[in-house]
Amino acid sequence: MANVTWKGVYPALLTPFKADDSVDFDVYKINLQAQMDAGVDGIILGGSLGEASSLSNEEKRDLLFFSKEIVPGDFPVIINIAEQTTKAAIQLAQDSETNGADGLMLLPPMRYNADSKETLEYFKAVATNTSLPIMIYNNPVDYKIMVTLDMFEAMMPYKNIQAVKESTRDVSNVTRMINRFGNRFSVLTGVDPLAMESLCMGADGWVAGLVDAFPAETVAIYRLVKAGMIDEALKIYRWFLPVLELDIHPKLVQYIKLAAQHTGIGTAHVRAPRLPLEGEELKAVTAVIEKALAARPVLPDYLNLKHKKDAAWA
Amino acid sequence: MANVTWKGVYPALLTPFKADDSVDFDVYKINLQAQMDAGVDGIILGGSLGEASSLSNEEKRDLLFFSKEIVPGDFPVIINIAEQTTKAAIQLAQDSETNGADGLMLLPPMRYNADSKETLEYFKAVATNTSLPIMIYNNPVDYKIMVTLDMFEAMMPYKNIQAVKESTRDVSNVTRMINRFGNRFSVLTGVDPLAMESLCMGADGWVAGLVDAFPAETVAIYRLVKAGMIDEALKIYRWFLPVLELDIHPKLVQYIKLAAQHTGIGTAHVRAPRLPLEGEELKAVTAVIEKALAARPVLPDYLNLKHKKDAAWA
Amino acid sequence: MANVTWKGVYPALLTPFKADDSVDFDVYKINLQAQMDAGVDGIILGGSLGEASSLSNEEKRDLLFFSKEIVPGDFPVIINIAEQTTKAAIQLAQDSETNGADGLMLLPPMRYNADSKETLEYFKAVATNTSLPIMIYNNPVDYKIMVTLDMFEAMMPYKNIQAVKESTRDVSNVTRMINRFGNRFSVLTGVDPLAMESLCMGADGWVAGLVDAFPAETVAIYRLVKAGMIDEALKIYRWFLPVLELDIHPKLVQYIKLAAQHTGIGTAHVRAPRLPLEGEELKAVTAVIEKALAARPVLPDYLNLKHKKDAAWA
Amino acid sequence: MANVTWKGVYPALLTPFKADDSVDFDVYKINLQAQMDAGVDGIILGGSLGEASSLSNEEKRDLLFFSKEIVPGDFPVIINIAEQTTKAAIQLAQDSETNGADGLMLLPPMRYNADSKETLEYFKAVATNTSLPIMIYNNPVDYKIMVTLDMFEAMMPYKNIQAVKESTRDVSNVTRMINRFGNRFSVLTGVDPLAMESLCMGADGWVAGLVDAFPAETVAIYRLVKAGMIDEALKIYRWFLPVLELDIHPKLVQYIKLAAQHTGIGTAHVRAPRLPLEGEELKAVTAVIEKALAARPVLPDYLNLKHKKDAAWA
Repeated sequence: MANVTWKGVYPALLTPFKADDSVDFDVYKINLQAQMDAGVDGIILGGSLGEASSLSNEEKRDLLFFSKEIVPGDFPVIINIAEQTTKAAIQLAQDSETNGADGLMLLPPMRYNADSKETLEYFKAVATNTSLPIMIYNNPVDYKIMVTLDMFEAMMPYKNIQAVKESTRDVSNVTRMINRFGNRFSVLTGVDPLAMESLCMGADGWVAGLVDAFPAETVAIYRLVKAGMIDEALKIYRWFLPVLELDIHPKLVQYIKLAAQHTGIGTAHVRAPRLPLEGEELKAVTAVIEKALAARPVLPDYLNLKHKKDAAWA
Repeated sequence: MANVTWKGVYPALLTPFKADDSVDFDVYKINLQAQMDAGVDGIILGGSLGEASSLSNEEKRDLLFFSKEIVPGDFPVIINIAEQTTKAAIQLAQDSETNGADGLMLLPPMRYNADSKETLEYFKAVATNTSLPIMIYNNPVDYKIMVTLDMFEAMMPYKNIQAVKESTRDVSNVTRMINRFGNRFSVLTGVDPLAMESLCMGADGWVAGLVDAFPAETVAIYRLVKAGMIDEALKIYRWFLPVLELDIHPKLVQYIKLAAQHTGIGTAHVRAPRLPLEGEELKAVTAVIEKALAARPVLPDYLNLKHKKDAAWA
Repeated sequence: MANVTWKGVYPALLTPFKADDSVDFDVYKINLQAQMDAGVDGIILGGSLGEASSLSNEEKRDLLFFSKEIVPGDFPVIINIAEQTTKAAIQLAQDSETNGADGLMLLPPMRYNADSKETLEYFKAVATNTSLPIMIYNNPVDYKIMVTLDMFEAMMPYKNIQAVKESTRDVSNVTRMINRFGNRFSVLTGVDPLAMESLCMGADGWVAGLVDAFPAETVAIYRLVKAGMIDEALKIYRWFLPVLELDIHPKLVQYIKLAAQHTGIGTAHVRAPRLPLEGEELKAVTAVIEKALAARPVLPDYLNLKHKKDAAWA
Repeated sequence: MANVTWKGVYPALLTPFKADDSVDFDVYKINLQAQMDAGVDGIILGGSLGEASSLSNEEKRDLLFFSKEIVPGDFPVIINIAEQTTKAAIQLAQDSETNGADGLMLLPPMRYNADSKETLEYFKAVATNTSLPIMIYNNPVDYKIMVTLDMFEAMMPYKNIQAVKESTRDVSNVTRMINRFGNRFSVLTGVDPLAMESLCMGADGWVAGLVDAFPAETVAIYRLVKAGMIDEALKIYRWFLPVLELDIHPKLVQYIKLAAQHTGIGTAHVRAPRLPLEGEELKAVTAVIEKALAARPVLPDYLNLKHKKDAAWA
């Protein structure tokens, strides 16, 4: 089993489909290889961007097996848990552990707007029924439930709850988490258009979306910021922002699949009720992608940077 | 198969559970009998109040079979569809039809914030794959997606899309629907604390929540308004409002189960991640229920009223 | 000084301007006469619809004097207070009393998002510095501050705080106010597209907007509902709703001035920063008004109805 | 007249009052001196934090005169314009220019939710009636109206519109403004708890609030980030955040006045309807301030740093 450091870039991978709606493992493999070549630090399967709402748990398991065969032994594969009942969440956590997952990303209960205590009990129930390390996915914008600092305080005794995917869209939460908990919880930014700001303020990692189409650029920004090379990172980030904004749209799946199709590492098919883009919307998104490709920056040798030693930074 | 008029009171039934989490058919039967005695016009299974998020489709099917055995042949049993994929929605619609359901209540796609076109395609896909009559459940407050007047316009050719459960919390929508579509779509109010207002403005029916604990009072209000006896209805409604407000809280399931326990036709157990009420919250909700019970009104003979003949009204 | 019953229809009058931006007293008089002919029960000057944000206190005073000369002695003229400091609010209240106003409509402090205690202190300061009767204007949608039931409870000892203009857009508040306070506070609906619903539920009066263009239709609906003639009222209200919705748009001033121009009792000029309507927006609003005029209902003899005797109703 | 570079730290100064509600020029002078000693780059009078809603234009003028007598000739004094009519805004702009102001901060029209065109016309009317340089204050959270990128595009021909106080709370707007307009508009962050993030991403300046109590710490953070000394800045910023959050509360005036009282450069009195803090709220805010004071960092020699030469940065 791979150790998860919760530092670095973790793509929330797309799930490519064939025209007949079945999972396209060939395209999946191409994209996964591109991610590894670019220097990502692990992968996340079955998240929102992976069309979790359209995948069965069996399909998540098959993607897990397939990924584990491809990646190096020390490269973590993390499974997303987005369930409606505590029972189903525990089951998926245990099955994932049995099937070789290296970590879990855990959303609050789906659909029911659980209160703080109910959400905590749900998290604890999962944490105590698996030995896998867990990243709590904090996204009240899409999923209503806010995981507060006090709730993280209550989770401190649970050693395998180790990280947060910070998607509150309030970038001050990076500093609040660090101020309150030091390095007890790794803080990973989960909103592409706020990622560089978060990394500048000390976030440990990036659960990324547009990495699925632009892996090298994403890892480059991460590595440059961690090396203290802010100006170089900012150049790339300013080029990247119009594309990164595709990550916060309800149609992020269609948008990012289209981008990945343009960069040659993905296909556009989505499962109903999602429909492919068309008309003005397709034009507009294509224009954003093409404009970015036309000005695609030459990246520095970002895989071979010296990291800053400052404890407050790296 | 029972004909669904889409007029009258339709309880969104609770799903009682035993301490071991299994469905409690005995208590279910007691409540269903109380509903029928009170004069409701049909029932809805597997809605939000029925803890759809915690039920399997097999359990919804068992509740359907069990209900059909109890109710008269002409008493409609309606199944709620709240699915994440078009495929699963069609499957559930067809299984429900096979298993004897008389109608469907249909939510937009769950979890994914589908746009208007995607939502319409999803609705049409279900409508064209079943012959059952369908009520569209319009609730952007809880489920993000708004079903607009233009979307209803696009649904007009689909004859089995016959009604809307109006839960936008904008009571003007009753008048907008009637102004735009006449009686093409029956309009049922789906928010207990706006129900009387909606009925005064011409809503055809009421998909009710607190009816699960107070069936007679609910049907009484409905019948009195339809008979033009506004003052009598208002007296009951003013008594009822503090209890009706339990229907719009995220914990409506726990709140209404507690109320049903107090009126002797339900039990409080809920499935995780929902937790039973406790502490100050339990005190506060109990106080509301007990205060209502202490002043429970004597109802008129509401089952034997003459209906108003005015076409604009009834 | 005229007694204010806080029952009936109270137009929030427009302030017509000439092309040179000065107040147009001739047009004002024409509209005021139309209001009185239609049977309104009083008038409100200097509200949002009266372009309070563009009027000086001197202009409000001049409108007050002018109105008092025109109306009968027992016809109340109410001044709106929308001030940023307690000092200025008290001053305007006292000046209005000196100048012959019969009542006040009082908003919470403007611009500063005062908390409950600060808002209460502000209200009490005004109430104790005038003998005029006061209607509290409750509109958190436009003005952020919510006047809660508990705050009304705290205002009970202040006998001249007598009414609320209910503009929370939560029509259940009519019933909550009545349940909690009986008839201690008159409840007037302040949102045209929720007016009939509110009146059905027992609201005492209507602070109306579209009355400024359609006075007879507005008073007709009010009188019919109070006489228990719901069907007749509903016919007019369903015709009226597309026009009434102009009342809840940020450009309600331009929209309603345009409507009043179409019905011959107003002019369209507004003071900057407001600009006149143009292009597609002008087309769309004109279409709504013209469609309504083309189907303008024949009204019953609504000024000579018998009122319902039921205590819960009238 | 002082040149405004729109780079650096610009305190939105408090307006201290005596117990009798009059402006306290002695305390004002003490605070202003502390600001200059700390190395701020200009001051802003009559903003939200300066209790604009409680000041008369005469008082703003007196503060302007008084300030100009104290500060060096090349130290800009900027007046905030928050008016309800175009006429009044132009008047205040011209009076301020006559009275020696060096620049203006301009809010959209107050109270009326003007649309884009109306807001632009308002801005243009002010800009064409003064020669003073102007910073547009973009704060839809408090003032409803959003100044969009397209609106800034339309303002490009107006040379004296030179800057934006970025208070949208969407820190990505720093990058969007820079991507779209290069350095045509200086971007100043206007939300203390997002300031360091904004400065890291290239914001030119900081319109600051807590600077009124902690001037040295604020300027230190600014200078350190601009010098590329992110780690040092981050140490101070992490200490500062709990206090900086006082800036985004509706009671920011009372909170920051309390902080300034604790640091010996302010007093707590506020004008009604604002009330002084008391009870639990006073305790809580005092605790935040005292905790910060107990751990107040030793600052580096931040007034004598070398600035980074990178064009993308400084």
